[in-house]
Amino acid sequence: MPLSITQLKISDAEYAQRNHRLQEIIDELGVDGVVLFDADYIKYYVGFAFIPTERPMAYVMSKSGEQAMFVPRLEVEHAESMGVIDRVALYHEYPDLNHPMNVLIDMIKDMGISGTIGADSDGYPWIFGYRGEPLSKLTGQEVINCRAPIEDQMAVKSQAEIDLLKESCKWANLAHMLLQKYTKVGIGEVEVSQRASNEATLMMLEAIGPIWRNNSSYYEGAMAGYRGQIGRNAAIPHALTSNIKFQEGDVLVTGASAPIWGYVSELERTMILGKPTDDQKYMFDHMINLQTLAMEALEPGKPCSEVDKEVREYFDTHQLMPYWKHHTGHTIGLRYHEGPFLDIGDDTPIEVGMVFTVEPGLYVPELGGFRHSDTVVVTEDGAEMITYYPRDLESLTLPV
Amino acid sequence: MPLSITQLKISDAEYAQRNHRLQEIIDELGVDGVVLFDADYIKYYVGFAFIPTERPMAYVMSKSGEQAMFVPRLEVEHAESMGVIDRVALYHEYPDLNHPMNVLIDMIKDMGISGTIGADSDGYPWIFGYRGEPLSKLTGQEVINCRAPIEDQMAVKSQAEIDLLKESCKWANLAHMLLQKYTKVGIGEVEVSQRASNEATLMMLEAIGPIWRNNSSYYEGAMAGYRGQIGRNAAIPHALTSNIKFQEGDVLVTGASAPIWGYVSELERTMILGKPTDDQKYMFDHMINLQTLAMEALEPGKPCSEVDKEVREYFDTHQLMPYWKHHTGHTIGLRYHEGPFLDIGDDTPIEVGMVFTVEPGLYVPELGGFRHSDTVVVTEDGAEMITYYPRDLESLTLPV
Repeated sequence: MPLSITQLKISDAEYAQRNHRLQEIIDELGVDGVVLFDADYIKYYVGFAFIPTERPMAYVMSKSGEQAMFVPRLEVEHAESMGVIDRVALYHEYPDLNHPMNVLIDMIKDMGISGTIGADSDGYPWIFGYRGEPLSKLTGQEVINCRAPIEDQMAVKSQAEIDLLKESCKWANLAHMLLQKYTKVGIGEVEVSQRASNEATLMMLEAIGPIWRNNSSYYEGAMAGYRGQIGRNAAIPHALTSNIKFQEGDVLVTGASAPIWGYVSELERTMILGKPTDDQKYMFDHMINLQTLAMEALEPGKPCSEVDKEVREYFDTHQLMPYWKHHTGHTIGLRYHEGPFLDIGDDTPIEVGMVFTVEPGLYVPELGGFRHSDTVVVTEDGAEMITYYPRDLESLTLPV
Repeated sequence: MPLSITQLKISDAEYAQRNHRLQEIIDELGVDGVVLFDADYIKYYVGFAFIPTERPMAYVMSKSGEQAMFVPRLEVEHAESMGVIDRVALYHEYPDLNHPMNVLIDMIKDMGISGTIGADSDGYPWIFGYRGEPLSKLTGQEVINCRAPIEDQMAVKSQAEIDLLKESCKWANLAHMLLQKYTKVGIGEVEVSQRASNEATLMMLEAIGPIWRNNSSYYEGAMAGYRGQIGRNAAIPHALTSNIKFQEGDVLVTGASAPIWGYVSELERTMILGKPTDDQKYMFDHMINLQTLAMEALEPGKPCSEVDKEVREYFDTHQLMPYWKHHTGHTIGLRYHEGPFLDIGDDTPIEVGMVFTVEPGLYVPELGGFRHSDTVVVTEDGAEMITYYPRDLESLTLPV
């Protein structure tokens, strides 16, 4: 019998299923083919991971299902070593004497895509110094936005994707355990975060290195850190990192993740350095209640908006609205944020296989930010929390 | 006399100069105002750094020079704590019951922008799950691409920007010294890279932490690493990292940088583990010649394409074209790649204040990739190399 070695990845058979669905999307949109420039979409349909630069790249599928990649010379070996595609068109450089988009246009025509094109962008986006004409202008064909059905497809995860996310949670958990262990008054948060991330990554590589690939543009490895959310900065949810030293009384908000074949989970905890004050305990308890309520509110068939509504009702009932700053959560997968959103304005029905972060937060000036985030998979019966780091105040009170 | 404390940043006065130029751009484009969604453009004009998510953000300038920011509730304190703007419009969430773009449209109208709009994108790009209508559709106004003059402005660096890039080079140098020091046969490249990056970052923060901000979405701190370019992978220039162990005979290609107020330099070296073979020495020497030739070819007034042509002539003359894979270099600044490019198709005239990476490469199957990259500032007299890591083979031969 043929022997294969286990690997933490998406199988060729599953990529074929994804591609089949894309071919259906082409029919549903009534287009002649799709052209995708988005690095995460290319990763999703082909398994090809790359760092975006000024050199345009695209994945193209025709109505007949033929699949092609358009890449710079620099990426030809890489493209040919990964994924299953029918043709590769290459160009030497950007901008070069013959603008690379001319090569893409020739390939599109050669694939018989002569009518309306579905694309995620009307031409390669002008990133990193790239300049070029719109696809519609170069082809003389109509180009329509094809992102919506692709986002819908990516929103529902397969068992294999969920397994990769579960693997991500393990290494995020390790990174976070180390982060908590090393966090002490007087030490800088960058030092702690780097040490925890560094060690967790090395351990992850020693454990699963041979069967693992990062494939994420967003993470270097397993990571846990603070992102500057310490003390008075904790009330600014996404503040960019500076090297603040921990002080007794700090309310800390963490973040941890680990990329597994491009898939990233989300784990965030609120921790308190030293004995919590009554005010801190008050907010922490409400935060726990809010998050539990939200996780228990997840069920297939319910609109996402309903979950956020139930959370907001709790805020209202307990006079906590002055501390509200953001919706209940977001989808996660290949991107650290995806749709649909647990947001009062998003009526998308929750489906089995969707994966959400659940993270209602309370932000109190002079006191701090209070937010746990857990990654939750929607199942037939409700929801399964795939992060599993302790949530209670005692476990998250750091000694001084 | 008033006393200020030195800081590694761009001054308010310089932001005002940039904004003044943007107002000229508005006139030159013949538009009524500009709307910018690009995070690096917002960083450039306002000094406001943020992590892009599904929550749309924008910077708007009207013909009269009024400057505004459109932000989610989440970012209001952050926006108000940084940069100098005349107004801030906020929305509570995305998607919310009232789509945030409605708030942006109201602000645009309220600023008197009723004619053609210059924008870097016709609406917030559909990233991280965001969905929304084009700006042109929502306003009923024509929207034209305003990126070209902005890219032109960003291409020429001020003395203050060059100073920040020089600072970046120092910490990249430290990270690279440590990387080289720790690289040994049998150790994994991730372990070495993490250790070097970790220590360099901590030292950088101890040295300049109080006067430094990262402000980059692309780098966590000072970093040096290999990106999987080891042994047989060295011939794939941008291969994403996996934990390969060093072996004697490896041809290693490194990368190092450090973010200073968002500005990032580039330092790359080819190193050989053990005594170089004759073939390796042959290619290494040609690489050095190519890079020296290219750096000496930089002069104000010459088209960028001319530099790449001179480099290609050397490739031709020495029968090295089979090993050619990419152009000579790119601009660098707030983005790790920017235009213009040292590329045969880019006739942009080189100007004093432009900053290029100079990195011609030789990629030889079964032997390895050979590429040094240095960051070079164009001056009145020619060029100043602001990276200064040893380039010679003896210094880059690692003992085994």
